[in-house]
Amino acid sequence: MSFLSLFQKKRDTAKTAKERLQIVIAHERVKREGPDFLPDLQRDIIKVISKYVDIDPDQVQINLEKENDCAVLELNVTLPDDA
Amino acid sequence: MSFLSLFQKKRDTAKTAKERLQIVIAHERVKREGPDFLPDLQRDIIKVISKYVDIDPDQVQINLEKENDCAVLELNVTLPDDA
Repeated sequence: MSFLSLFQKKRDTAKTAKERLQIVIAHERVKREGPDFLPDLQRDIIKVISKYVDIDPDQVQINLEKENDCAVLELNVTLPDDA
Repeated sequence: MSFLSLFQKKRDTAKTAKERLQIVIAHERVKREGPDFLPDLQRDIIKVISKYVDIDPDQVQINLEKENDCAVLELNVTLPDDA
């Protein structure tokens, strides 16, 4: 299953007519003890995206999942109608 | 199926011991005729990531899928061992 089909499956469930942006960052670490940079990366990516579209901070849903050596950060952004 | 489980499924297939970073950006457009900003966004995100880890441009795989009003940009980055 591709990410495209997974995204579209989610969209079919949501049944919204909004423009949406979804960003998923998965970081697989191998024997790495350094600091986790995902929270900082998340902030920078939101900053970068806001160069292209207006982002309402209230319309950003953030989800971070961690399991063993894998961390997945998911950002779901609903864009304003007049973006 | 969550993105985490999808990512881990891919990892099991790959059987690599490398540190990896995967970024997926899905953009769902609704009646929108404006320019597609994903290529520029991709360039900016790579720039942002390189603030945190060394990225070898040869180790970045880029895949862009488009279907109807949905575009999915996928970046797969294999990080150097000494990152």
